[in-house]
Amino acid sequence: MATPVVATSGSWEQVAARKRDALMSSIPQEWRIPADLLPPETQDDVTPWPDTSGWFTAGELAITGLTASELVAKLALGEFKSEDVTKAFCKRAAAAHQLTNCLSETCFDRAIATARARDEHLARTGKPVGPLHGLPISLKDHFNIKGLDTTLGFSSHAGDAAESDSTLAELLESAGAVFYVKTNVPTAMMMAETVNNVFGRTLNPRHRQTTSGGSSGGESALITMRGSPLGVGSDIGGSLRIPAACTGLFTLRPSTGRFPVRHTRSGMPGQEAVQSVNGPMARSLTDIEFYSKCVTGERPWLRDPRCIPLPWRPVELPTKLKIAVMWHDGMVQPTPPVKRALRITVDKLRDAGHEIVEWDPVDQKEGIVLLVQMLLADGGTAIRKELERAGEPFRPELLDYQTATELGTYEMWRLQSERTVFQNRYLDRWNNAGIDAILCPTIPFNTVKNGSFKHVAYTGVFNLLDYSCLSFATGFTVDKNIDRLDSAYEALGGVCRAINEEYDADMMDGLPISLQLAARRLEEEKVLAMGKIVLGALSSNP
Amino acid sequence: MATPVVATSGSWEQVAARKRDALMSSIPQEWRIPADLLPPETQDDVTPWPDTSGWFTAGELAITGLTASELVAKLALGEFKSEDVTKAFCKRAAAAHQLTNCLSETCFDRAIATARARDEHLARTGKPVGPLHGLPISLKDHFNIKGLDTTLGFSSHAGDAAESDSTLAELLESAGAVFYVKTNVPTAMMMAETVNNVFGRTLNPRHRQTTSGGSSGGESALITMRGSPLGVGSDIGGSLRIPAACTGLFTLRPSTGRFPVRHTRSGMPGQEAVQSVNGPMARSLTDIEFYSKCVTGERPWLRDPRCIPLPWRPVELPTKLKIAVMWHDGMVQPTPPVKRALRITVDKLRDAGHEIVEWDPVDQKEGIVLLVQMLLADGGTAIRKELERAGEPFRPELLDYQTATELGTYEMWRLQSERTVFQNRYLDRWNNAGIDAILCPTIPFNTVKNGSFKHVAYTGVFNLLDYSCLSFATGFTVDKNIDRLDSAYEALGGVCRAINEEYDADMMDGLPISLQLAARRLEEEKVLAMGKIVLGALSSNP
Repeated sequence: MATPVVATSGSWEQVAARKRDALMSSIPQEWRIPADLLPPETQDDVTPWPDTSGWFTAGELAITGLTASELVAKLALGEFKSEDVTKAFCKRAAAAHQLTNCLSETCFDRAIATARARDEHLARTGKPVGPLHGLPISLKDHFNIKGLDTTLGFSSHAGDAAESDSTLAELLESAGAVFYVKTNVPTAMMMAETVNNVFGRTLNPRHRQTTSGGSSGGESALITMRGSPLGVGSDIGGSLRIPAACTGLFTLRPSTGRFPVRHTRSGMPGQEAVQSVNGPMARSLTDIEFYSKCVTGERPWLRDPRCIPLPWRPVELPTKLKIAVMWHDGMVQPTPPVKRALRITVDKLRDAGHEIVEWDPVDQKEGIVLLVQMLLADGGTAIRKELERAGEPFRPELLDYQTATELGTYEMWRLQSERTVFQNRYLDRWNNAGIDAILCPTIPFNTVKNGSFKHVAYTGVFNLLDYSCLSFATGFTVDKNIDRLDSAYEALGGVCRAINEEYDADMMDGLPISLQLAARRLEEEKVLAMGKIVLGALSSNP
Repeated sequence: MATPVVATSGSWEQVAARKRDALMSSIPQEWRIPADLLPPETQDDVTPWPDTSGWFTAGELAITGLTASELVAKLALGEFKSEDVTKAFCKRAAAAHQLTNCLSETCFDRAIATARARDEHLARTGKPVGPLHGLPISLKDHFNIKGLDTTLGFSSHAGDAAESDSTLAELLESAGAVFYVKTNVPTAMMMAETVNNVFGRTLNPRHRQTTSGGSSGGESALITMRGSPLGVGSDIGGSLRIPAACTGLFTLRPSTGRFPVRHTRSGMPGQEAVQSVNGPMARSLTDIEFYSKCVTGERPWLRDPRCIPLPWRPVELPTKLKIAVMWHDGMVQPTPPVKRALRITVDKLRDAGHEIVEWDPVDQKEGIVLLVQMLLADGGTAIRKELERAGEPFRPELLDYQTATELGTYEMWRLQSERTVFQNRYLDRWNNAGIDAILCPTIPFNTVKNGSFKHVAYTGVFNLLDYSCLSFATGFTVDKNIDRLDSAYEALGGVCRAINEEYDADMMDGLPISLQLAARRLEEEKVLAMGKIVLGALSSNP
């Protein structure tokens, strides 16, 4: 059932079409949704479908309804067999793909074989293989998995199967995980929505006219559909946090060196001025922490020279946190629902006894400009060369890469110096303010209509800084009756105006609202611990 | 007594001459060696001079004869006053400069004021300011010190005094240190000997016809003269280890992120493909460890965003170490004394029960080629622009920078990708061998005649890898009677032949021989602990 090798001859359109066909063919008949059960294309919210369609057994629904932490507890005790869990997620992932186009690869055979080996190990030894014993984990397309393509949305990469697993995959598998699917990304992973010329567009299962975000938007759609209990995405300008926020999931953007990146494919290989990191996406903060402990517990620094020998550390928080709220980033005012969620969160934190100060967004614009300059510094050459190999055109979303001018190394060094000065200044401000965290929007909206995503600055500046960031679902959802554009709203600029004017309360009604919490560099433990405090404050009654 | 500001008008030669004059003028009359006591220029070894000249008091000699750890113990108890200790080192540093041309700046006024404040603090509170209470520490020129120039050997930087201290200096001072001098470097710190158009050449005090190494060669000369108990240098291709080895000192090249680099001047600002690090140089391994604990104990990660939150960790070594010896790097055979020291060290380690395996140098050449390509990637533009500001010519030692071609960012990214592949492969080999360390030469000779240094590959490859490295004095010295070029010697290439044919046993006779011990990235604690084991084995009788 593994994705067959795709011949790479023919036009890029033919290659892409064959790749899509191969992906669909890799889904066995039993996991294809019968035509009469398929919801109409006009159905926006497909998240209830697995429960209501009758296509899943009660057992499958029970399994796929659990979080990763709940599943590993039952798997380790043998209450669930990994084979049953894996098959349930394979089926539900197949359904998610048919409803949202979220996958890029499947390896169902490998998954079931691994799952059976897990079950046999437990039966034989009485012990789980490791902390992730028998748990299906989905991976963003850029993680190499032996025998599967690592396409990144480029037709040139179709039919070029990886010869070995990425280091993170090896490490997760040795901790007990089961791999069964890889998920769709935008071309080169350099957009905030998930669309490419090979696999097309991934849709947000909560409202298919809206985006599941990007670049880890295949993951966010899949996990939101409960086609995966836990997935791993990556982030260079917001690519974990944006899709998590668009769908109401949790994610940790770790600092560089915490989780292994070795043997993953980059859309711009060798670009290091701002480094891509990977991290977990899940439906609960508990799962995010559980995963993070597992990965550091496997001592990735012994296998990936980019990793830092930093075990997962106990963290002691002050009873009274000092949190700086950044209401807007000086460029774009968040839309009404995000404003409301942020305001209530701040109020609840204050009520819970924490100190709230304001964070002046004075530096944000310089930060995002620097980030963009550094990502465009090769004049889009890396992406252009990859497209040219297959005669594939630039997608319009990549116009900036298509038209960028390459910098010489001297100019690139100058940018890197400016970035260091920026990092120094930001840290000084942080120290002078004496804060524990910055609380702000993850994105300036809850999500947007497909094709209209703008403004990654709320996330991107923290990539430039390499800070530890959590994007969390607040539990609030858009309410079309109250989340209306304030008549007193004043645009901070053209993008601000466009975003707020394009905000459609009726379309967004009922969709989840997320926020972002940022801590210093390499404070992953602390940002997660503070996230718990924030969630605790949010769940308390006024 | 602080170095006066130098007007920057006039030709670069005039600027440089005024800068040299200002440096000499900053040395008060009482610390200028009387003409009749000055050893003749033909005297090669000036290290005995302080003891034999009669110019130092017994008290000054007693103070300057101690190591940093010995001094802080007495300073903390008030047995020594910081003012006395500081003045003794100021005087001896002034002498060292007059004999080896090792300084670039002095700040004797600040030193004495700081020292008095330390003494007053101890008298008033009964407690030392911190672990470095009252200890004079010398700094390589690239550390900014308020009111002093940071010249890096460029006449363009003369007269451009720093407005504040570097982060490391702030941190050391808050731990109790006293600053009194900065030390000479080669132009842009990009040579393995210490010579530039502003201050000229620093000489090796053990043999002034030979080099004290570079780029931290002002430090090595000063410390060897006991004009400093402990100094801080930096290393991007060997700039700590080379001068330490040339003079028989100890140094730690830490991995990136361990010690703060903020607000230091680089010869090639923004170059990050291989990062410059700084570290201590001293006459004992104990001092190196003591300093390293102090710096990490000050939590530099709270002040410098490049630093990693990694406290100094306890290390438990296996009773039997597995050490890979690299007899040569595949390019250059070490000269006879270095070969002998390495062979004896290996024998003693084996005798002490440790396992010795051989390290195939197969990867070394690719590593050094990559390093050089990355350092030349801006086509020498950064250095050229700095020279052009003053109309200063390139020194012949910088020919590679003068003639390099600038790479575009795409090509630079490609190099960075190759470097990552190299790092991965090296780590795999390390893991497969299951070793704790690599033992090898620091440089292929003990030192060389001024102007003839070649081959930085023994150190540079570990910069590319970002490994933790110790350069240590073996206790062996060159013996002209036994360290003769073997008749069976076969050159590995032209550079190998040149180095071995230029080796002059008579000139080198009696000079110290050093070796290098390398551990994984961020294993500073371990490499120092292993260094103690090696020294212990060396000091045991056969």
